[in-house]
Amino acid sequence: MPHGARRVRGRERRSRDPGVTPLPWRAVDNPFPPLEPLSADQIEAVHEASLTLLERSGVEVMSEAALDLFAAAGAAVDRASGVVRPDRDLVLEQIAKAPSRFTLTPREPAHALQIGGNRLHFGLVSGAPNLHDRINGRRAGNLPDYIRLISLGQSFPCIHFLGSQPAPPIELPANTRHLDIAHANLVYTDRIFHAIGIGAGRVADAVEMVARARGLTAAELESDPSVIVNINVNSPRKLDDAMAEGLMESARRNQATIITPFTLMGAMTPVTLAAALTQQNAEALLGLTLVQLTRPGAPMVYGGFTSNVDMKTGAPAFGTPENAKANLAGGQLARRYGLPYRTSDCNAGNTVDAQATWETMMALWGASMGHGNLIYHGAGWLEGGLVASFEKLVVDAEILQHLISFLQPIDTSPSEIALDAIESVPPGGHFFGTEHTMARYETAFYAPFLSDWRTQENWAADGSKTATERATEIWQRLLADFTPPPMEESRREAIDSYVAHRKEALGSEEP
Amino acid sequence: MPHGARRVRGRERRSRDPGVTPLPWRAVDNPFPPLEPLSADQIEAVHEASLTLLERSGVEVMSEAALDLFAAAGAAVDRASGVVRPDRDLVLEQIAKAPSRFTLTPREPAHALQIGGNRLHFGLVSGAPNLHDRINGRRAGNLPDYIRLISLGQSFPCIHFLGSQPAPPIELPANTRHLDIAHANLVYTDRIFHAIGIGAGRVADAVEMVARARGLTAAELESDPSVIVNINVNSPRKLDDAMAEGLMESARRNQATIITPFTLMGAMTPVTLAAALTQQNAEALLGLTLVQLTRPGAPMVYGGFTSNVDMKTGAPAFGTPENAKANLAGGQLARRYGLPYRTSDCNAGNTVDAQATWETMMALWGASMGHGNLIYHGAGWLEGGLVASFEKLVVDAEILQHLISFLQPIDTSPSEIALDAIESVPPGGHFFGTEHTMARYETAFYAPFLSDWRTQENWAADGSKTATERATEIWQRLLADFTPPPMEESRREAIDSYVAHRKEALGSEEP
Repeated sequence: MPHGARRVRGRERRSRDPGVTPLPWRAVDNPFPPLEPLSADQIEAVHEASLTLLERSGVEVMSEAALDLFAAAGAAVDRASGVVRPDRDLVLEQIAKAPSRFTLTPREPAHALQIGGNRLHFGLVSGAPNLHDRINGRRAGNLPDYIRLISLGQSFPCIHFLGSQPAPPIELPANTRHLDIAHANLVYTDRIFHAIGIGAGRVADAVEMVARARGLTAAELESDPSVIVNINVNSPRKLDDAMAEGLMESARRNQATIITPFTLMGAMTPVTLAAALTQQNAEALLGLTLVQLTRPGAPMVYGGFTSNVDMKTGAPAFGTPENAKANLAGGQLARRYGLPYRTSDCNAGNTVDAQATWETMMALWGASMGHGNLIYHGAGWLEGGLVASFEKLVVDAEILQHLISFLQPIDTSPSEIALDAIESVPPGGHFFGTEHTMARYETAFYAPFLSDWRTQENWAADGSKTATERATEIWQRLLADFTPPPMEESRREAIDSYVAHRKEALGSEEP
Repeated sequence: MPHGARRVRGRERRSRDPGVTPLPWRAVDNPFPPLEPLSADQIEAVHEASLTLLERSGVEVMSEAALDLFAAAGAAVDRASGVVRPDRDLVLEQIAKAPSRFTLTPREPAHALQIGGNRLHFGLVSGAPNLHDRINGRRAGNLPDYIRLISLGQSFPCIHFLGSQPAPPIELPANTRHLDIAHANLVYTDRIFHAIGIGAGRVADAVEMVARARGLTAAELESDPSVIVNINVNSPRKLDDAMAEGLMESARRNQATIITPFTLMGAMTPVTLAAALTQQNAEALLGLTLVQLTRPGAPMVYGGFTSNVDMKTGAPAFGTPENAKANLAGGQLARRYGLPYRTSDCNAGNTVDAQATWETMMALWGASMGHGNLIYHGAGWLEGGLVASFEKLVVDAEILQHLISFLQPIDTSPSEIALDAIESVPPGGHFFGTEHTMARYETAFYAPFLSDWRTQENWAADGSKTATERATEIWQRLLADFTPPPMEESRREAIDSYVAHRKEALGSEEP
């Protein structure tokens, strides 16, 4: 304690209010300029090297339809190997056709996302094969838990969009699972979600379902997009057939296509950050070019997912210094091409402890200060993505609310500088009961729902609960209180019947 | 997991190496421009308001000698109340006399600190009345634990300086405790440390002892300073007698004087951040003016310590969004006056959990991206400063090492972009055994000592230890392996004999 500090914990609450009142829905703009670890010259060096890589060695594309598009546009295409070598003029000409900003509207129009510029959006975890919470333990993805997970996401307005199949329900048949996922997303949340980009059919089904949930036709959705399709390049330098088909269907439908090379340094790229960024950039540009060759002007997003492995073991790592820097540098590359930027907020913790938290904060700082427009895995990611954790989701929501509050500008108007209020208290006094304080104290500061600021004695008397243990109480309460956002009966019937019709058409495969 | 991702955890270590190899000593420069939440106009508004506050209402200074200095310089001084009202010209003229950069040299010259510009330094916790670790529990400060705490600080070269009496040994007599503290600091560490700024005598004793440990005279130390003296203003608007005397002695000795108002919004200042910054600035300027009135040109540092209280309970909070913004804005004010900046990296957690970590990271981002030159409480602070925690110290050292690695520039030279290395692996291959990887893999990435990146199965088989539990193993090992940095026998004898002589002169008071 500083010399002369008075203890100010006198007015201690007797017990903690167990209620949770998350921050309301809010557009989050980053008022700071982006942090840029690379100079303009360095960005040009990476840019030029990646274009040379595309021209000289290219990317394997496992789709005849995609190869046809590249060949028709004049790219060098080797039909035997599937390798495409587009020249730099073709690439730059194509990606220049994309908009730098666009809007995605979910079934609740108030939750539309303006993608681009300095606006940040945070997403629920994507693609975790397992779930975990401290009550029920670790288990494989299943539909009841899927619904609970996305309901928790819906409970926090700081989670602006759902990840791509946050935790796939693997007990369901693989060929129709995407219908159940989209149906649950539409019934239990009112946020932007993903069509699963594995093949054209899943994308088309999601588009058809969102259109019905919005009371639009699928054709109308082409001029008013709702769906995100995330396409992973299989690094190094390979775009597989299902992803290529999903990409092209997304573009044909004019939905938001994100191209995200999955580039773990030391495994899928060389160990140097400069090489990883070069390879990431080449792979992203290849996919982005294919989007525009499919439908000129289709909305698309530059994705980066560059982290490193533990070179002692090969284990993937996230929230490392290298990952945080890659998150910043990826934003520079996206802006180089005038495209919105998708990045991530990951960690490699095995439990919701200090490590999971510092890694999350490192990655989040890079993602947000790199002006990520879509920050994936913002809530619930654990074990390097192998688990969607309910406690981590709650901790992450608190962290996101901290960040959102941090990004609010400082008001220095005269009533805020408040010289009179300062002068109303004599030297050595205090401000607890002053008029200026009383008029503002309820809203002056961000009020966290998860922090415990009681004295050690009171905290210990209440069971010495860690933030993770308190998070368990919070998700239980949120799920007990959860009500799905209302949907017009006719729209609900339309999506129910679409799913029934499609399941009949697709038949049932074993999961 | 992204579609198409390969599991890369195959080469799992069988057991973790328990060794700890901290990053070596390194100057840490922030390559990014400072993040600035206030516009130039807003900074001027705060600046002008704080000067008006000084002129109109002033600050109470409880020292006749200080009042004499202010009066002699032409400031309005009310002898009855002790209130000083310096006009703005006097304040600005005085603080302009201070250097914008200076060097502090401890007994190990390689660990000198260049204070100013974009160089960051991280400090061990200051002033915690208690200690805690998971083996020995919570206890009041005592000399054996003090030595263990600073030995842990010495074990991590990322901790550049000691806090002001990191955890005071309260069993020792109050009037000579500072001698035992300085002696321990000099024997067990070779870092810059603080003279305790409570009265002139403690400052003089620290200066005399450091001089002997460096083989210099106290007079020589005036042109080659070694000591930091942190002066807290007792907000609102009061500088007590002991702090004023400590301030003036530090200035007379030409050591580094830091003026840090302790401004918890809602308690010691109004609830608005603009008012808190205005009051902080006025209080800091008053103290900084007194430094220059005492000795023109003496090195000094602008200190900020603005956070908020929980308005429901009055409990102090740290690492809040408001605290992080105040850390950034304080840097803008320091740069407005051409002075180095001291800020802090605090949290209000009761245990080393997710909350303590996210609060630490929020505060640390504000402190480091605000270009704090001296970042206090960078390692070991817990419970809002009531406890120095051994586990938190280890976690914080890991976080600091992450930050330091994050601040290293990205190399984009041709061998790093490494087009040939990228092209040497075919589409869909991997880079584990490539020549480029093999030549670099041991040093390519920052290697954390505390992170556990093993699979869930292996982590669970090894006891499911959290980062906090692993930190316990690490501090035990570091203390078992600790060797104090060597000191010439003659210098050791000189400080031993100084302490003995001074204890005899001061007599023994009850602690």
